[in-house]
Amino acid sequence: MEPGDAARLGPGRAARALPPRLLLLLLLPLLLGRGLRAAAAASSSGAAAEDSSAMEELATEKEAEESHRQDSVSLLTFILLLTLTILTIWLFKHRRVRFLHETGLAMIYGLIVGVILRYGTPATSGHDKSLSCTQEDRAFSTLLVNVSGKFFEYTLKGEISPGKINSVEQNDMLRKVTFDPEVFFNILLPPIIFHAGYSLKKRHFFRNLGSILAYAFLGTAVSCFIIGNLMYGVVKLMKIVGQLSDKFYYTDCLFFGAIISATDPVTVLAIFNELHADVDLYALLFGESVLNDAVAIVLSSSIVAYQPAGLNTHAFDAAAFFKSVGIFLGIFSGSFTMGAVTGVVTALVTKFTKLHCFPLLETALFFLMSWSTFLLAEACGFTGVVAVLFCGITQAHYTYNNLSVESRSRTKQLFEVLHFLAENFIFSYMGLALFTFQKHVFSPVFIIGAFVAIFLGRAAHIYPLSFFLNLGRRHKIGWNFQHMMMFSGLRGAMAFALAIRDTASYARQMMFTTTLLIVFFTVWIIGGGTTPMLSWLDIRVGVDPDQDPPPNNDSFQVLQGDGPEAAGGNRTKQESAWLFRLWYSFDHNYLKPILTHSGPPLTTTLPAWCGLLARCLTSPQVYDVSTVWPGCPGNPASASSLNFPQT
Amino acid sequence: MEPGDAARLGPGRAARALPPRLLLLLLLPLLLGRGLRAAAAASSSGAAAEDSSAMEELATEKEAEESHRQDSVSLLTFILLLTLTILTIWLFKHRRVRFLHETGLAMIYGLIVGVILRYGTPATSGHDKSLSCTQEDRAFSTLLVNVSGKFFEYTLKGEISPGKINSVEQNDMLRKVTFDPEVFFNILLPPIIFHAGYSLKKRHFFRNLGSILAYAFLGTAVSCFIIGNLMYGVVKLMKIVGQLSDKFYYTDCLFFGAIISATDPVTVLAIFNELHADVDLYALLFGESVLNDAVAIVLSSSIVAYQPAGLNTHAFDAAAFFKSVGIFLGIFSGSFTMGAVTGVVTALVTKFTKLHCFPLLETALFFLMSWSTFLLAEACGFTGVVAVLFCGITQAHYTYNNLSVESRSRTKQLFEVLHFLAENFIFSYMGLALFTFQKHVFSPVFIIGAFVAIFLGRAAHIYPLSFFLNLGRRHKIGWNFQHMMMFSGLRGAMAFALAIRDTASYARQMMFTTTLLIVFFTVWIIGGGTTPMLSWLDIRVGVDPDQDPPPNNDSFQVLQGDGPEAAGGNRTKQESAWLFRLWYSFDHNYLKPILTHSGPPLTTTLPAWCGLLARCLTSPQVYDVSTVWPGCPGNPASASSLNFPQT
Repeated sequence: MEPGDAARLGPGRAARALPPRLLLLLLLPLLLGRGLRAAAAASSSGAAAEDSSAMEELATEKEAEESHRQDSVSLLTFILLLTLTILTIWLFKHRRVRFLHETGLAMIYGLIVGVILRYGTPATSGHDKSLSCTQEDRAFSTLLVNVSGKFFEYTLKGEISPGKINSVEQNDMLRKVTFDPEVFFNILLPPIIFHAGYSLKKRHFFRNLGSILAYAFLGTAVSCFIIGNLMYGVVKLMKIVGQLSDKFYYTDCLFFGAIISATDPVTVLAIFNELHADVDLYALLFGESVLNDAVAIVLSSSIVAYQPAGLNTHAFDAAAFFKSVGIFLGIFSGSFTMGAVTGVVTALVTKFTKLHCFPLLETALFFLMSWSTFLLAEACGFTGVVAVLFCGITQAHYTYNNLSVESRSRTKQLFEVLHFLAENFIFSYMGLALFTFQKHVFSPVFIIGAFVAIFLGRAAHIYPLSFFLNLGRRHKIGWNFQHMMMFSGLRGAMAFALAIRDTASYARQMMFTTTLLIVFFTVWIIGGGTTPMLSWLDIRVGVDPDQDPPPNNDSFQVLQGDGPEAAGGNRTKQESAWLFRLWYSFDHNYLKPILTHSGPPLTTTLPAWCGLLARCLTSPQVYDVSTVWPGCPGNPASASSLNFPQT
Repeated sequence: MEPGDAARLGPGRAARALPPRLLLLLLLPLLLGRGLRAAAAASSSGAAAEDSSAMEELATEKEAEESHRQDSVSLLTFILLLTLTILTIWLFKHRRVRFLHETGLAMIYGLIVGVILRYGTPATSGHDKSLSCTQEDRAFSTLLVNVSGKFFEYTLKGEISPGKINSVEQNDMLRKVTFDPEVFFNILLPPIIFHAGYSLKKRHFFRNLGSILAYAFLGTAVSCFIIGNLMYGVVKLMKIVGQLSDKFYYTDCLFFGAIISATDPVTVLAIFNELHADVDLYALLFGESVLNDAVAIVLSSSIVAYQPAGLNTHAFDAAAFFKSVGIFLGIFSGSFTMGAVTGVVTALVTKFTKLHCFPLLETALFFLMSWSTFLLAEACGFTGVVAVLFCGITQAHYTYNNLSVESRSRTKQLFEVLHFLAENFIFSYMGLALFTFQKHVFSPVFIIGAFVAIFLGRAAHIYPLSFFLNLGRRHKIGWNFQHMMMFSGLRGAMAFALAIRDTASYARQMMFTTTLLIVFFTVWIIGGGTTPMLSWLDIRVGVDPDQDPPPNNDSFQVLQGDGPEAAGGNRTKQESAWLFRLWYSFDHNYLKPILTHSGPPLTTTLPAWCGLLARCLTSPQVYDVSTVWPGCPGNPASASSLNFPQT
């Protein structure tokens, strides 16, 4: 469990220093439960102290009720924000306005509400009279308090810096709309990432697999390193001119490089979709952005885990460095394996049962298995979000083909809605956070430095890599594509989620503020400039959907079976790289026949001595193209709706 | 805000006394966030106490990591349970086994896992060394603790009875699988209830509206009163024979009557669906069970809110009684209004925008608006679950008709999946709770008494009411129907959620245990006996779907438009009650034309002086049946998928 153990140090450490003000307003009506629990606390305290006084009890119950109501109101605020965003998006789409994407809009509404909350609501002091008592040894996570003979259990919420003791609970409403940062990581990101994996357009993705992997791995590492070093220079400069008031280590700079290297060209891709831009460019951009999220998460954990032995904890130490590299490889491959394995298990289950007769059960199973990937990875000390990504890719590639027609649309639509809501929630929260987050550190030098650094980092990532890739590519990546990729280095949900995860130290607060501004700028300015940029760079739009099927209208496409792929096999093989060819033949000859109902029979691809096994694993359909999928016995309604287009 | 205020006293009071052992393991990956926060607590304590000792820090981080891992494992347990349930259900459906429903199966698996957790895992003592310090006045909800100069914030978790101080955190795994009871109420019930409302079969529901309302309101009240009084007798008896070791008031008995009056014939209805049993019986049973959940919740809150003035808090007090009645009416009508209003707003928004061109936006809006009903009601002090029910009914009746074809299936399927997962989760949790809940009070006398009482209560509810209803009904409710309704008095998710909400006092613990056993018994035995009972009572099955459309395969049906209704209007009008006729004409002449694209033009139904208003509100389609719905400009893909079947 070595890599796993070390991996968890990241979040563990990050979480350790959660600022006490970042209080737990939770997503989902859960928060209401929370409210009631606060009620429980408040009223039991009242009851215990003066058991006979009904008035006191009533007062605390009123308080509890008030808190519960406020919780509901604050969550309602977010929902109304999202509702407003949806209605405005509709208006924009209706009027074909393209300069502002829904995420940019969500941020603007968030900003407005943030301003109102910040300056429009009175600062109320908390009702809870705090009491101090002195312990001797250390702060335990559970505390028992004896109040007139009754015992109460308390849990540790976090440390408070001495100067802020009196300002805790200053503005109730601001506190209420502040979510636990782990909510972003554990609730909002997984559906976004899963959806990205599930909607990867297989054919173009795999055709450009080598380049995408290079951009995602090498590129992100290069970008992280360049940005980290440039920022270290900026920090040194700030120290010299006296603009830095607290510690800022080299590892902090590298961490910033890692989190800000997660690109999220959501607005650009939306426009690509709408205008049917070049599919290869789309595949490169989308593939890179999906995979580099995974790389950035793991990279940031590895950097946090970099702990040289001895006292000088911020000097270079070869052993610690290689340990970090090992951790990176360990977490990444572990998460990858977890995701792939759950995907494969789901594929096998859906292949060998007749679950497709009951689309509801099928969808529920699909949902649960995909979610269990996340939990399994977290339980083993890997990164759930990364596992979910690879699970999504595997599900799209194999399981999708085994699902009934109804389940295909159900699963697609379910994750589409979840993804849409989660993404817009994050972006509207970002807008809100600019005004409601209480510990911003605005440092103009750092911010300007960061903008320059991400520009240079992106350039150092795209151009040299493209040059080397073009040496091996039959289908060169043209200058206009390179410029477009350079331009599309937007930052979004992932960078934000990584930045807000730990805002305890001065350095992290500065990073958070800077990340927020970078996201705003890139989403609004770059997102708005995509359409002019496309025509300026002369990138072909309106690609013929028949020749190169563009992503369909709802930005979701998973190739159905590998029929077209097999048909155009020769062409595809010729124009693609050796990595793809190797993968393609293995996938087509062994994996597809084992995991789905399509592909050549295993009896022809496996050696003769595997005959029995091959017969067991091969689906009867593959022998006879005309075989109708055996209907669901006695279930005519759903059997008739089955219409398997594979073979 | 009088009724609202008082209403919240219910849950507030219930929550006050949450047992400290029922600790907050939360649904959804949220729990992972929780784990990390626990980590935050644990590690910050370590760090603060001995800042220089890296070993100590490492140890607490390991602990935190371990806790996070355990959280993931326990949630994974539930997911695997559900997965197993799904696979077994598939097997049962595949082999046409009808004696055990999926919910019964989920309970069995839950039971098995509960036994393993209880007897198979070693009891570990908690790592947290607790520390006592004495306060003077009362237990505050926030505590500041000074540890060697650093301040830590603690929140109150609850009271611990002095005898149990040492056994806190006894068995970590048991504690981990124990959810916060409010999770059931605020996360799992809303989708179940919304789905019930959204899938109410309108035609048969409204045709039997009078009877359904009578069963739901009068019937539940009668049942509650009868059971409460019988149980009071049982409790008196127990006191005499010395079987009662703590207080058990008359209001407690009434409360038990209220929570156990919430019927949930899910297994019976599933079999009705499958066998296409008589649609009127289906409508009566389903309608009654849906509405009586709402009545039972509000009734139980009102009973909790019954607080006579003065010292003798458990004697009868006319003022307090009438206040309770007022609270009942206030909460019920408030929640009803909230739900209906959000439904109407959603209908208007979907009617007057061309949102149907973007099904994703439409579905997201529908989801958010429906959810905001819950929050709005809770924010106003009403009952969210009840509001959600009426919102679902309104959405099905109006909004559904304005949605695009794609959104109709999306919203149906989305809520279907949520409902399925939530329901099976609750039932498997029930199985688990029998062994993992740590405060069961098994009282054989009380349990036997309760079984007799619910039998008598159900009889006193069904037979006399049916007699009186038959006096007014054209279409009599036959003896076999009455027996079947008597038989279908199963208890399920709602009774459980109400019972687990407060298990602090001895009386409530006894109720919880008894409720659990009643649910087990009714789901397994009565659910299993449904098919024999149907044939024994000679209830017609295999009803012709054309004549009386049966619920479709996936147990979900919302009538599309009111075309068939209008066509068979005469027949419907003749055979139905005056209440329905009154409602029907109002709905058909005014509400439908205002809120949807169907119905007669308002210009013909409204008086002449409303001409302008009528023209604005009426959809252009209603004038010309052949008018094709204006497509979505420049969006051919989604426009072609539009196929509005209204007239």
